[in-house]
Amino acid sequence: MKKYVFTPGPVPVPSEVLIEMAKPIIHHRTGEFEAIFAEIREGLKYIYETGQEVFILAASGTGAMEASVANTLSRGDKALVVNGGKFGERWGKICRAYGVEVEELMVEWGREENPADVQKALDNDPSINSVLIQASETSTGVKHPTKEIAEITGKRDDVILIVDGITGVGVFKLPFDEWGIDVLVGGSQKAFMLPPGLSFAAMSEKAWNFYERSDLPKFYFDFKAALKNAEKNTTPYTPAVTLIVGLAVVLKRFMAEGRENMHTRHARLALATREAMRAIGLDLFVQDTPSTALTTIVAPPEIGAGKVVAGLRDEFGITVAGGQDQAKGKIFRVSHIGDIDKTDTLSVIADIESVLSLLGYEFNFGAATKIASEILAES
Amino acid sequence: MKKYVFTPGPVPVPSEVLIEMAKPIIHHRTGEFEAIFAEIREGLKYIYETGQEVFILAASGTGAMEASVANTLSRGDKALVVNGGKFGERWGKICRAYGVEVEELMVEWGREENPADVQKALDNDPSINSVLIQASETSTGVKHPTKEIAEITGKRDDVILIVDGITGVGVFKLPFDEWGIDVLVGGSQKAFMLPPGLSFAAMSEKAWNFYERSDLPKFYFDFKAALKNAEKNTTPYTPAVTLIVGLAVVLKRFMAEGRENMHTRHARLALATREAMRAIGLDLFVQDTPSTALTTIVAPPEIGAGKVVAGLRDEFGITVAGGQDQAKGKIFRVSHIGDIDKTDTLSVIADIESVLSLLGYEFNFGAATKIASEILAES
Repeated sequence: MKKYVFTPGPVPVPSEVLIEMAKPIIHHRTGEFEAIFAEIREGLKYIYETGQEVFILAASGTGAMEASVANTLSRGDKALVVNGGKFGERWGKICRAYGVEVEELMVEWGREENPADVQKALDNDPSINSVLIQASETSTGVKHPTKEIAEITGKRDDVILIVDGITGVGVFKLPFDEWGIDVLVGGSQKAFMLPPGLSFAAMSEKAWNFYERSDLPKFYFDFKAALKNAEKNTTPYTPAVTLIVGLAVVLKRFMAEGRENMHTRHARLALATREAMRAIGLDLFVQDTPSTALTTIVAPPEIGAGKVVAGLRDEFGITVAGGQDQAKGKIFRVSHIGDIDKTDTLSVIADIESVLSLLGYEFNFGAATKIASEILAES
Repeated sequence: MKKYVFTPGPVPVPSEVLIEMAKPIIHHRTGEFEAIFAEIREGLKYIYETGQEVFILAASGTGAMEASVANTLSRGDKALVVNGGKFGERWGKICRAYGVEVEELMVEWGREENPADVQKALDNDPSINSVLIQASETSTGVKHPTKEIAEITGKRDDVILIVDGITGVGVFKLPFDEWGIDVLVGGSQKAFMLPPGLSFAAMSEKAWNFYERSDLPKFYFDFKAALKNAEKNTTPYTPAVTLIVGLAVVLKRFMAEGRENMHTRHARLALATREAMRAIGLDLFVQDTPSTALTTIVAPPEIGAGKVVAGLRDEFGITVAGGQDQAKGKIFRVSHIGDIDKTDTLSVIADIESVLSLLGYEFNFGAATKIASEILAES
């Protein structure tokens, strides 16, 4: 059976990238590799909208999340963690593993963080020196208000904002310099359309000040070593060469497309999917602002999400993500990132209709694809 | 120009592996992936010669080296580091980054560690609780006596042996259980014939006792999380899916070849290369036991290694490694790991003869390929 992934990572990788990565390997201490690396540095700065260096780690996203903490904080520091899903929870776990004290702002799954609560927490406890959020919380599909939170932390020299942008960078507007984000993490298997195994991070000047006083141990993930080497178009330790070769191809495609058009592409696919699900009477899990990386759909309770996920897998060879923890069995998540276009999106919507129909859900078959096709045609 | 790598990582990747990795990506939380993962677990145990789990990290080798320290040692512990090259030096840097005290046994580059010195150091300082070595020091081409050092640490319940086997595992005999190694690190871009981006580690029972008391921070590299997930045929964080798919192909090839035959393959290619270089009057850098992962050759001093490396690159499209630090300009290193066979080896030997001749080195042209072909014909 032909296989399709509509998961918010891994995502479909363009065939021209797969082919490039399948070419005979090159060595990373060569002029050829350094030329590729120089191109990539520029491309990543373009996507991040920053003049700062964007570091490339041979690690998946969690590695870069850990690196962000280890490079800026110190034992006994107090971090304010926005926890509205699995990945917010992970920020807390990473901080605690390093002896960083954690105050959690618990946010109901499916709701976005209220910036006023961040302001209040900072005002109430002057010992908090860092705010850790997800730009896009992949477990719920919520987009948190990064810009508004950055405005709050931007007023304080002694507080940094660390943003997990793994399903945000390249997906929607998240300009590093303009908004005053201090650390921004990205991952290859998201908007970057690559296999997992690379992650990214940029640091503001304020974050570098934090680096200087940070006493948390780091070696493989040390951003200063990464910075020194990036300036020589290389990495301190052996890079994931094939993924970097693939990244160069992807970034060329993005430069041609334009970052604003990338954002529009994701937004359009997300809108079509949301409206399609609504048109057949399904609820969306996100109560506030949805991330355009994915759409989180509440399965008809009498059917349950497990059967929808299994139906898509067994009938159509499609992998979508189910819910995790408290959302398990309740939701399924359809992704709009990676090498997914309007043909793919209309296809997965039709497949969802088909599976729901087979499962006995009663609805006006075709209503989902109809509204989606209208929205997608406008582009 | 067609390109060839004869570097001790990255190494040539078999075309059937490149093709497999170029197939459309699969999701890592699927039955399909878990079936691949289960196969790989068995394959890695076979290569490691262990009943313990072998962890798979999405990180290059240095990440797994750091993980080995972070999972076993504690702040203020004292480690005995055998430093006879760049990678021995790296053990010391990693330990110090984590607040682990380091006593270094400095070994002249090109010489192997004398196990008696390890014994003496342990006897003199009972506070030393760990010995860190390279099975194969890639910067010099030396093979350190892992078995003999393991016999020493094996007699002490309070001392563990952490072995960087990045260019050792799968290259030559390094049986984890039989020799009583406590932590053994491997890397994908070496004998495993894969691109960089994966690394491996196994832990003995003794090492797990150390884990229990270890107070060094770890999250992404936490071996207990890796263990729990491996038992469910998955990883705690997003794995480098394409490399893992490639690993499954490579391990099948190794099971068919047999691990002893793998060791013989490397040994034969190394012997042919060493004898070839000797036959044309070149000195080998390793004074004691050479690693069979690579051959380290002293360039004719009147020519210098830089010109040999550049000649191979410019005339033949070949990348070999030069020397690092104190060996820079003095040596060049030719690898025997990865998808390299006797045809490749005879070819690089002929190319070295050609380049040396062009550079004005006087020798009996053909003597190197002659002896190498005799040795390779015996296989």
